[in-house]
Amino acid sequence: MKFETKYVRYKKLVDDYLQEFIVEKKPASIYQPIRYVLAGGGKRIRPVLVLLSCEAVGGRGKDALHAAAGIEVLHNFTLVHDDIMDNAASRRGRATVHTKWDQNVAILVGDELLAFAYRALLKTRSPRIQEIAKIFTEGVVEVCEGQGYDKEFETSLAVKVKDYLLMIRKKTGKMVTVATEIGGLIGGANAKELRALSKYGQHVGRAFQLQDDLLDIIGDEKKFGKTVGGDIVEGKKTFLLLEALRRATGRDRQLLLSIFRNKGAAKESVGEVRDIYHRTGAIQATMRRVKQDITRANNELHHLRPTPARAMLFWFTEMLLHRSY
Amino acid sequence: MKFETKYVRYKKLVDDYLQEFIVEKKPASIYQPIRYVLAGGGKRIRPVLVLLSCEAVGGRGKDALHAAAGIEVLHNFTLVHDDIMDNAASRRGRATVHTKWDQNVAILVGDELLAFAYRALLKTRSPRIQEIAKIFTEGVVEVCEGQGYDKEFETSLAVKVKDYLLMIRKKTGKMVTVATEIGGLIGGANAKELRALSKYGQHVGRAFQLQDDLLDIIGDEKKFGKTVGGDIVEGKKTFLLLEALRRATGRDRQLLLSIFRNKGAAKESVGEVRDIYHRTGAIQATMRRVKQDITRANNELHHLRPTPARAMLFWFTEMLLHRSY
Repeated sequence: MKFETKYVRYKKLVDDYLQEFIVEKKPASIYQPIRYVLAGGGKRIRPVLVLLSCEAVGGRGKDALHAAAGIEVLHNFTLVHDDIMDNAASRRGRATVHTKWDQNVAILVGDELLAFAYRALLKTRSPRIQEIAKIFTEGVVEVCEGQGYDKEFETSLAVKVKDYLLMIRKKTGKMVTVATEIGGLIGGANAKELRALSKYGQHVGRAFQLQDDLLDIIGDEKKFGKTVGGDIVEGKKTFLLLEALRRATGRDRQLLLSIFRNKGAAKESVGEVRDIYHRTGAIQATMRRVKQDITRANNELHHLRPTPARAMLFWFTEMLLHRSY
Repeated sequence: MKFETKYVRYKKLVDDYLQEFIVEKKPASIYQPIRYVLAGGGKRIRPVLVLLSCEAVGGRGKDALHAAAGIEVLHNFTLVHDDIMDNAASRRGRATVHTKWDQNVAILVGDELLAFAYRALLKTRSPRIQEIAKIFTEGVVEVCEGQGYDKEFETSLAVKVKDYLLMIRKKTGKMVTVATEIGGLIGGANAKELRALSKYGQHVGRAFQLQDDLLDIIGDEKKFGKTVGGDIVEGKKTFLLLEALRRATGRDRQLLLSIFRNKGAAKESVGEVRDIYHRTGAIQATMRRVKQDITRANNELHHLRPTPARAMLFWFTEMLLHRSY
């Protein structure tokens, strides 16, 4: 079977689980939006990684399904609350919860989703459940820290590349690592396998976020689902901006600094900024980093026995590299 | 030793734990307010109940300290988020997080506190840790549902006494039950003891909330720490209002209905409403209910062996009944 087909199948396992997961109906002010959120789709990258990591160490994927769903619900909790904080009106082409309902509802719905994330996770049968729940919890701690840094950076004039890398490690990367580690633990990984899966997650998580930054500049608007150049317009301190700033001189540097300081640029400037990103080598540098992380991620997989799941993890990494969405 | 002195000692165990609990410092935008919240004091009723319930079934209180702290941190998470939703400017005589910092900070701080609640809980060493974590999680689910109902009731014209009782069972009562159940589980309770502790928690939790409603009307403003009559001014659909509405006729009923419908009354009406609460027997009815719950709570304690912890639980129940704060 083609990997793509298999991926769709894994994804469907998660989608089906989430659709039947919550039986509660009242209070409707909470449960209607919760159903809305969980039906919103998404790439389901984290839960599929849980399932694959479990299988890649010899476990049965279905034993990790609760945990996989838990990680996806957790991810959705972060989206609902982040959307409030970021004043985001839409997500995946649909109105955000605080826009469609109101902000109080969105706060409460996020909280409830976090509880449901634990509900799913804690259905897992594993002798290592306490360790699993601890890893999950430290993931939540770091995701919140990451968002905290992200908000701090919006008004800080001292953000450097290394700060950005710390922020995305916490905000995006950590939960990818949690996914691979938990999958491995449920699958009965030994210490060596667990370390390999953990590092695999670290590299993939970072590559994924850097690729996201790249796609904002060079992506296909239709496939990406976001307006190209949005990060520039919003003045987001992405890897690209910080890296270009480190390299640029003269007028280029002045333009980047004004985006950096004034938190954004006019839509008309996107093309010019993109040129600067090319000219300074920031785009090349980012691509290099992504490729490096992908290589390192794949190297970690060599510590695992060859299985169909491992083959699929190799494919998964490549897919992330070549995705245009 | 006097019970009061013992209570102060238990409380101090929790306060000391919380003071040293969080070692993280950055991002400061999150950790400064988190320290502020955890240093804010409070009666620490829930964590003390965890410790006492553990000891009342023959366990060592210190084995339950992580869980006790976890329940208190969880409680603080609900306060931070509820204060946003309720637009509350102060709590325990100090500015609320969203007032002192801003709303985004308060959302994130609440989320992080929920994660830290699990961090503390999951340090517990118990063969029943998975069951404990599940009970804790269902507590979070219901607390959110309770808050959801509470917000729905603000604009609903169909709220009845039974709806109110459902709401407080979830919003206030559940976590008291969770406290006694988790304490019991850590202490190694058998099925009979666990059932007794659970029911004890249910009755105490409800009595506590109804007593809170009463104190708003007949409490000592200085000791209570809130403005007497605040519920009436805000038009909160308390047990008293709903019970009085059920009983009142003529002009009395018209006044209560206007509070019910218009979400509040002028400060000057508080005295008149209090008179109606007396006249209709609503205050007597509430007191009767509180006493009934206290009696039932104590009856449950008779299912436990006589221990110093059980004696203290008896005292604890009485204290709740006679408190004026």
